[in-house]
Amino acid sequence: MTPDATYAFRVRLHDIDAAGVMFFGHLFRHAHDAYESFMAGLGWPLADLIRTGVRLPLVHAEADYRQPLCLGEEIQVEVACEDVGRSAFTIGYRFCDVQGGLRATARTVHVHLGPDSVGKAPLPEAIRSALILKHDPRSV
Amino acid sequence: MTPDATYAFRVRLHDIDAAGVMFFGHLFRHAHDAYESFMAGLGWPLADLIRTGVRLPLVHAEADYRQPLCLGEEIQVEVACEDVGRSAFTIGYRFCDVQGGLRATARTVHVHLGPDSVGKAPLPEAIRSALILKHDPRSV
Amino acid sequence: MTPDATYAFRVRLHDIDAAGVMFFGHLFRHAHDAYESFMAGLGWPLADLIRTGVRLPLVHAEADYRQPLCLGEEIQVEVACEDVGRSAFTIGYRFCDVQGGLRATARTVHVHLGPDSVGKAPLPEAIRSALILKHDPRSV
Amino acid sequence: MTPDATYAFRVRLHDIDAAGVMFFGHLFRHAHDAYESFMAGLGWPLADLIRTGVRLPLVHAEADYRQPLCLGEEIQVEVACEDVGRSAFTIGYRFCDVQGGLRATARTVHVHLGPDSVGKAPLPEAIRSALILKHDPRSV
Repeated sequence: MTPDATYAFRVRLHDIDAAGVMFFGHLFRHAHDAYESFMAGLGWPLADLIRTGVRLPLVHAEADYRQPLCLGEEIQVEVACEDVGRSAFTIGYRFCDVQGGLRATARTVHVHLGPDSVGKAPLPEAIRSALILKHDPRSV
Repeated sequence: MTPDATYAFRVRLHDIDAAGVMFFGHLFRHAHDAYESFMAGLGWPLADLIRTGVRLPLVHAEADYRQPLCLGEEIQVEVACEDVGRSAFTIGYRFCDVQGGLRATARTVHVHLGPDSVGKAPLPEAIRSALILKHDPRSV
Repeated sequence: MTPDATYAFRVRLHDIDAAGVMFFGHLFRHAHDAYESFMAGLGWPLADLIRTGVRLPLVHAEADYRQPLCLGEEIQVEVACEDVGRSAFTIGYRFCDVQGGLRATARTVHVHLGPDSVGKAPLPEAIRSALILKHDPRSV
Repeated sequence: MTPDATYAFRVRLHDIDAAGVMFFGHLFRHAHDAYESFMAGLGWPLADLIRTGVRLPLVHAEADYRQPLCLGEEIQVEVACEDVGRSAFTIGYRFCDVQGGLRATARTVHVHLGPDSVGKAPLPEAIRSALILKHDPRSV
């Protein structure tokens, strides 16, 4: 996976749980921060999408944890568009330490909700094109 | 302070931070959960207030920490209306362990935002009356 | 899946994100709260496990989202042990509304870390037996 | 207050609550992130302090909210040491938007816990000196 964008964060006191390492659920918070940054980089800040009624909720999320994330560590998140369909797309995340070691991966699947919010709808063409360009430039 | 309502929670793995005790900021999350429960008990679930355009944002929050909250502990929050003004009110919280020991206190001050969201407005009379009744029945 | 335990929570103001529904990542926080309750019910409160050096970190987590969770809703989480191996086990979660409608599912996979925290180790026999009993009484 | 350090963050999807603005409690999370950054800048990363047994828990926290923080906004936190006593110190935070507008303020009071964790102890001299230097260079 060639990252389409990177996002960095530092593991903070409140990220750590009673077991002394980052609470697994917080990985998804950081993944979504990276996704917001990725989408803003494509020209689609989430605030704008929400304002214009474009809803791209998650239908699936998953993560695999290799090595715990510890207090004070700086983590780089590599973000890539893994798949783009007619009304859904998949974003992949690789969490690496500053030595390049892979610590965790995650994946989120988003669908485009139609205006009535009851079913999925084709992705807005401009968003789909931008994601496809990120996914595989040859396919455009 | 005679509590107007109580709310219980258990300190969870993710409440604890890298120092081994509950992260101070999470006390406010639990306080607000208790406030939501208190308001629902008065007949004003926050979902209804938001749906009808009643905004009661916080303008101040504070907490004092006496003894750390630890993993697995059951905590009782005593909620009381400490003050009711024309357009603002103050809620107090006492966090006690099951032995009745006081572990922390908190206070939140809420104002009623007018429809334009730019300035404070008199509290809706029904909410004000319910809060005053909780604050001091003799004053109604 | 016959639930081995249930856990209830109410969707709170801070659970909701800028898109107006529960932030997907918070589902994992609630799932883990349900897991803590499940483990305590088996006789293994996490505080005791951590105190005695038993580490059961997650190596995988996933969730599927069917219908958004909304402010004020009461949600029941059905928890079940889906699989028990030599050094790992899988917990499944079904998030249902009070009408019984399935809103989301999640799954967490935990491994037992050996005392040096570098590799997986066989599950402590007492924990393994309790989980197997929950998983399938016939197999004991 | 002349800031001793600044810390920037962007308001994320999960920072926003059901009322459409940043959940008040999250201000304390961001304040503490700024405090961690401030302490690291002084040469005292929290991970090092915890590793060496130095505990500086909060005994008080407060915040005043002027204008809501909204999705996607970039916020600068100005951090300053407001007071240094024998065993306690106070950190102040000013949350400003990129136009310099003051949106919120916060304050945290920390005490040094002695090795038995039951009472306060004089601040380690090196930390106290570093904080005093930040508080008021003339007083050293």
